Amino acid sequence: MVFTGWPAPTGKHLSLATPFPGDRPLLLSSGARLGPVQVAYETYGRLDDARGNAVFVCHALTGDSHPARHHADDTPGWWETMVGPGRPVDTRRYFVICANVVGGCAGTTGPWATGPDGAPYGEAFPEVTVADMVGVHRALLAGLGIRRLRAVVGGSLGGMQTLEWLLRHPQDADGFAVVAGTARQSADNLAWNAVARHAIRGSAAVAAGPVREAGLRAGLGTARMIAHLTYLSEQSLHRKFGRAPRKGGTRTHPSSLVQGDFAVESYLEHQADKFLRRFDPRSYLQLIGAMDHFDAFAAPDRLADAAAPPAVLLYSFASDRLFGPEHSDHIKTELAARGLTARHERDETSDIGHDAFLLDVPGFLATADRFLKDLDLRAGARRDDLVTS
Amino acid sequence: MVFTGWPAPTGKHLSLATPFPGDRPLLLSSGARLGPVQVAYETYGRLDDARGNAVFVCHALTGDSHPARHHADDTPGWWETMVGPGRPVDTRRYFVICANVVGGCAGTTGPWATGPDGAPYGEAFPEVTVADMVGVHRALLAGLGIRRLRAVVGGSLGGMQTLEWLLRHPQDADGFAVVAGTARQSADNLAWNAVARHAIRGSAAVAAGPVREAGLRAGLGTARMIAHLTYLSEQSLHRKFGRAPRKGGTRTHPSSLVQGDFAVESYLEHQADKFLRRFDPRSYLQLIGAMDHFDAFAAPDRLADAAAPPAVLLYSFASDRLFGPEHSDHIKTELAARGLTARHERDETSDIGHDAFLLDVPGFLATADRFLKDLDLRAGARRDDLVTS
Repeated sequence: MVFTGWPAPTGKHLSLATPFPGDRPLLLSSGARLGPVQVAYETYGRLDDARGNAVFVCHALTGDSHPARHHADDTPGWWETMVGPGRPVDTRRYFVICANVVGGCAGTTGPWATGPDGAPYGEAFPEVTVADMVGVHRALLAGLGIRRLRAVVGGSLGGMQTLEWLLRHPQDADGFAVVAGTARQSADNLAWNAVARHAIRGSAAVAAGPVREAGLRAGLGTARMIAHLTYLSEQSLHRKFGRAPRKGGTRTHPSSLVQGDFAVESYLEHQADKFLRRFDPRSYLQLIGAMDHFDAFAAPDRLADAAAPPAVLLYSFASDRLFGPEHSDHIKTELAARGLTARHERDETSDIGHDAFLLDVPGFLATADRFLKDLDLRAGARRDDLVTS
Repeated sequence: MVFTGWPAPTGKHLSLATPFPGDRPLLLSSGARLGPVQVAYETYGRLDDARGNAVFVCHALTGDSHPARHHADDTPGWWETMVGPGRPVDTRRYFVICANVVGGCAGTTGPWATGPDGAPYGEAFPEVTVADMVGVHRALLAGLGIRRLRAVVGGSLGGMQTLEWLLRHPQDADGFAVVAGTARQSADNLAWNAVARHAIRGSAAVAAGPVREAGLRAGLGTARMIAHLTYLSEQSLHRKFGRAPRKGGTRTHPSSLVQGDFAVESYLEHQADKFLRRFDPRSYLQLIGAMDHFDAFAAPDRLADAAAPPAVLLYSFASDRLFGPEHSDHIKTELAARGLTARHERDETSDIGHDAFLLDVPGFLATADRFLKDLDLRAGARRDDLVTS
């Protein structure tokens, strides 16, 4: 395996699987074939003898296979509040699996990876969809010998994967928890991704070679700043930064190419810089493209095989200006029209915005905890039924 | 006068004045001197014999001296709903003046203009403030022999100029109408400008020469898209575009440098392209810098000389996600603390967002019309007083 080009994972904590036996290529939704496909994943906890305690965690746009620290890697993960010992996705109780999505840049095959001609795919990487992401997750599970999950859990783009999974393969899990998710992006959501795309493409369009690469990365920084702002509410920006000046900064000239004058600007610049160290602009274009084209209920025949309907939790945050409660309401309505009752819990306690799902919001975490424990009870009752009958 | 570099006005419809007699340089708020300063302005209607019927219109971030068509130029202006025969700022009744702001790129001295060394100022143009813009407007009025205005009217950055004018020189006009304005940008406002600044600077930082110019312009396109989205509400984007595909478009590859797939994306790209034909990235950096640093009530001694307090109208739109009603509430509170009563009218009828102030919103236009006619009545009564006493 060769990592080339943009920030590549060190690989030291990752398990790598080639989920399609015999290096069979993956048939993508677009009709293109991609392969062989390698998947970077991490697991937590122990699979029980019945292979029935697995929980799959789907990551968001810029996530990876590392939601929480574990024995082999104590780097903090992106969902420490949700995953770990004593957390709702309790690694003492569950066998937890998290995998980098196809098209990503944290170990799973994506634009960074070496293509059939020995060079990185780069922009030649075929278009992937949310359905393709779920397809690769399922192939990984098959490779691990897991036929049924206790739950699938994901927020934001992870929530979109969870919803897609529910609609295509409702029999795969006892429960699905879609957090701060959407069934399809609004015009406003599409518009912000359009600006991000323009920033990345536009910066790159003006030059070639190393200057073009630098342009792509400059654009990716801008894209990250845009995304970051959609993840936070006006109120939380006001509370955290207000109009405070940059720490230790002096006022700069408006045309200078140095840093901006305000604390909020300094914070966003720092976020952009940090992001460039770990993300690939071509992956970013792939993943926001997948988000934009996701339209969960566009196909009419979904949920056709939901003989034993799974439990569905939709969780939203009132302060979320990306995928607010109206997105979850819409999912609930569409599911109901297909005969599936979902529970929608709307958080009014956090003013953080979209990012609340990654943070310590007690009501949210308690709801997730109860949802998973209820699934355990149902699964226990089902096993008892089998034993007594 | 030489226009060099970026999109320069043709100048054919503009009056040009050098408002500082004897080419005396302008002392800027920063302490720097700029000069000579030329001002591009347009006038509408006739100044009455008492020189008492003048209304000054302040333009917003990307505006110019042409709010409406007139006898010498039938190009539609940027505020046709507000300015013209039979409009609230009635050109049959008022002598209307509008001037491009200092630092701008539509005729008034800005980064595009030739500096003392014979080359365009470019990034060496000194930092300007909202106070500097008002200072140049006032110098123009002095040059035109107008000592008192019936009203100053402006929206957005024009509203910020209007507020600054009110606080520094309340005796300059009978009334001030601040539309969709703010006394100081919020953390969220600052943050979006920070992203715009990063887009422009970042694209340019990666190269030199013509590639750098192209990068500045690519970044300016991104900045325009960001700004445009803050000018529209989620609801209006949904109503106008939803998830409709680009007209006649086919789905494109996520990494390609061609246009995006959705109607809203196509619309934003079109807005960016149009903007590049008329705006200068260095002016943009100047003007958003002036917006960011504007803090109307930071100086404690404002309004000290408001012996005969002017009438003040604050108008806001509930759907405005840039400068919503809370910004006007804040202005009203701060004015009240300084002994000046302002009226704040909040529009709930338009779902357009910030841009509503430029569009045909009947309640808004009727309010502006009434405000100006009341000023006329007050001025008439004052004249009658003078005659009878």
